[in-house]
Amino acid sequence: MIYADNAATTKMSRAAIDAMLPYLEESYGNPSSLYAFGQQAKEALEDARARIAAALHAEPREITFTSGGSEADNQAILSAAALGLRKGKKHIVSTAFEHHAVLHTLEKLQKQGFEVTLLDVHSTGLVTAQQVADAIREDTCLVTVMYANNEIGTIQPIREIGAVCREKGVLFHTDAVQAVGHLPIDVKADNIDLLSLSAHKFHGPKGIGALYARGGVSLEPLICGGAQERRKRAGTENIPAIMGMAAALEEACAAMDQNAAKLTALRDRLIAGLDQIPYSQLNGDHAHRLPGNVSFCFEGIEGESLLLLLDEKGICASSGSACTSGSLDPSHVLLAIGRPHEVAHGSLRLTLGEDAAEADVDAIIQATTEVVTYLRNMSPFWRDLVTGKRPHVFAN
Amino acid sequence: MIYADNAATTKMSRAAIDAMLPYLEESYGNPSSLYAFGQQAKEALEDARARIAAALHAEPREITFTSGGSEADNQAILSAAALGLRKGKKHIVSTAFEHHAVLHTLEKLQKQGFEVTLLDVHSTGLVTAQQVADAIREDTCLVTVMYANNEIGTIQPIREIGAVCREKGVLFHTDAVQAVGHLPIDVKADNIDLLSLSAHKFHGPKGIGALYARGGVSLEPLICGGAQERRKRAGTENIPAIMGMAAALEEACAAMDQNAAKLTALRDRLIAGLDQIPYSQLNGDHAHRLPGNVSFCFEGIEGESLLLLLDEKGICASSGSACTSGSLDPSHVLLAIGRPHEVAHGSLRLTLGEDAAEADVDAIIQATTEVVTYLRNMSPFWRDLVTGKRPHVFAN
Repeated sequence: MIYADNAATTKMSRAAIDAMLPYLEESYGNPSSLYAFGQQAKEALEDARARIAAALHAEPREITFTSGGSEADNQAILSAAALGLRKGKKHIVSTAFEHHAVLHTLEKLQKQGFEVTLLDVHSTGLVTAQQVADAIREDTCLVTVMYANNEIGTIQPIREIGAVCREKGVLFHTDAVQAVGHLPIDVKADNIDLLSLSAHKFHGPKGIGALYARGGVSLEPLICGGAQERRKRAGTENIPAIMGMAAALEEACAAMDQNAAKLTALRDRLIAGLDQIPYSQLNGDHAHRLPGNVSFCFEGIEGESLLLLLDEKGICASSGSACTSGSLDPSHVLLAIGRPHEVAHGSLRLTLGEDAAEADVDAIIQATTEVVTYLRNMSPFWRDLVTGKRPHVFAN
Repeated sequence: MIYADNAATTKMSRAAIDAMLPYLEESYGNPSSLYAFGQQAKEALEDARARIAAALHAEPREITFTSGGSEADNQAILSAAALGLRKGKKHIVSTAFEHHAVLHTLEKLQKQGFEVTLLDVHSTGLVTAQQVADAIREDTCLVTVMYANNEIGTIQPIREIGAVCREKGVLFHTDAVQAVGHLPIDVKADNIDLLSLSAHKFHGPKGIGALYARGGVSLEPLICGGAQERRKRAGTENIPAIMGMAAALEEACAAMDQNAAKLTALRDRLIAGLDQIPYSQLNGDHAHRLPGNVSFCFEGIEGESLLLLLDEKGICASSGSACTSGSLDPSHVLLAIGRPHEVAHGSLRLTLGEDAAEADVDAIIQATTEVVTYLRNMSPFWRDLVTGKRPHVFAN
């Protein structure tokens, strides 16, 4: 099996599993308990918090553990909105291709009277700091722009956007679920006020994430109850998963340059190979892109058939994000970068892991080329393109 | 070490850990992915859902996975409130000694214009179905009463309360975090519409729980985003933890009668032993009580000192719930059953696990007796009681 869907989820590293096991097995104390056995869990919790904070150049008290990236996104945005509301500021700036954890939370706020401006991301899948500056109004309480897109992997100019927000006194949140552990992140230098992350995207466990909130940015609890996490997130802390997350993040950060160099070379080899397929195109900017992300559209193809035939050849890939795979609608991300509906349906996302080899990439190229050719040969839609009854979208 | 704080958290069973491991290690696919490796995870997820549903006599589609009991409580109550709002019904009935995940969510709703009636739980720590019937009004949209109290272990007449709610057409939620895996639960026979549970209270993993919602009771997502959990709870499913929860619950249910018989005998031995300490009293009804729960108040004692000295003797215990241990306020549960402040501060909760032995119970009795005597001998407050300057609350 060639697993090329690391944006959906990653294999846990051995170090992360080994960091979890003692807390699953023997050190099961509740960190809120007074006795030493509980306080040992508390110490582990605070040690993990400090290590995760350090990886982001944050302070430990600025880290709140959540059940994952979606919860962190929800809490970040609702907290900023609550702060805005107190000042009578009910306008939020975001982009058209955010993750649904952001977009649906913004829709919830729109029902409560907030106004949302979604910035155009252009054919490149990039927004500019200038766009953000132009969109900010007197009543803007929050800018939320994802660090790297989960489908097409484009990396936004976060530091510049952060600087604009800081200058205008507007809170800045970034959904960094796809970036943390893969790109160097410095919340201070990047001018970030709120940042969401998820462990299972960097070889940590599922079901755990964190929300960074700069000191002075007050969080509203999304889950109310006990006094855990300085009253910002109720529920017994998931110590095993938190320990696994801290280990995975440290490991990812230590190997980041090496991994990025390796993955970038593999990615570019894969892009070059797929580019040989006629009437196909890379989605999103090539240069400002996650090291492991390759996203293509192929004319005359149904993405689902492509995935199933690739699966038969032992390749795990996706059309867009895993989170929306229940939906028949074309990807909102691909529509946002201007792909027509019929092309957006023929998308393929390949996200490579650090253990991938050149041979894997070559196997993916060969399999994809074969499957695309096979599917096109069966497709009446493709026949119309070939015979000129329909115009091509991409060049040969 | 004698671990007598199983209401705070439990040691994971070997079966639960073994059920998690393959999904931490090799079967890491995202259940939303189309390829076979993802669909295997999806099958595991649905298998676990069916097994958890079966343990509650529910249907699989009635189970939504959450990050734990607090999230399930929040979502259940906010969902019922949203349904109520649509019908113009803004009154909720609950009790004075619910978990804070319930009470704080109710406070949030009060700020939004909901009215909340908190029923008296009497010195027994029990409410009656008649109280619920009397409190329900035309505009009542929800009754939420915990199955078993987390501090004093008293078990409410859930089936009768459920019958009252069903008859009056009011939704009934129960926080069953302390009950699931320990008491036989049949959501249909018990007339329950919404039920919260948490795996780490029955030897499953931390960071996972579930919300049962009867078919036809529509849940509002608390965490918005992807289409997971039939759009009721966004975020990549925590498959390893879900598999661990299912294994733990099946194991707990299979051994429930045997565990309950053993724990009841140990509990009663412990109660009888602690009852020998002068000026002490069991908190809450003895008969309607969780098999492993012993909760006492001792006059003239500070609970925190008691815990620390018991810890030195190798006994893990708590004063009230772990979730509120950061707070200096006396337990709202003990105040709700009428304990005066100075006595509520001298509380001890001992919650036995299935691996406890008579020798452990005897060691707890001896240690507690010694520590209470020691602390009283040092206490000016106790001297005042002995010399008659202050009246005793309890009989000798």
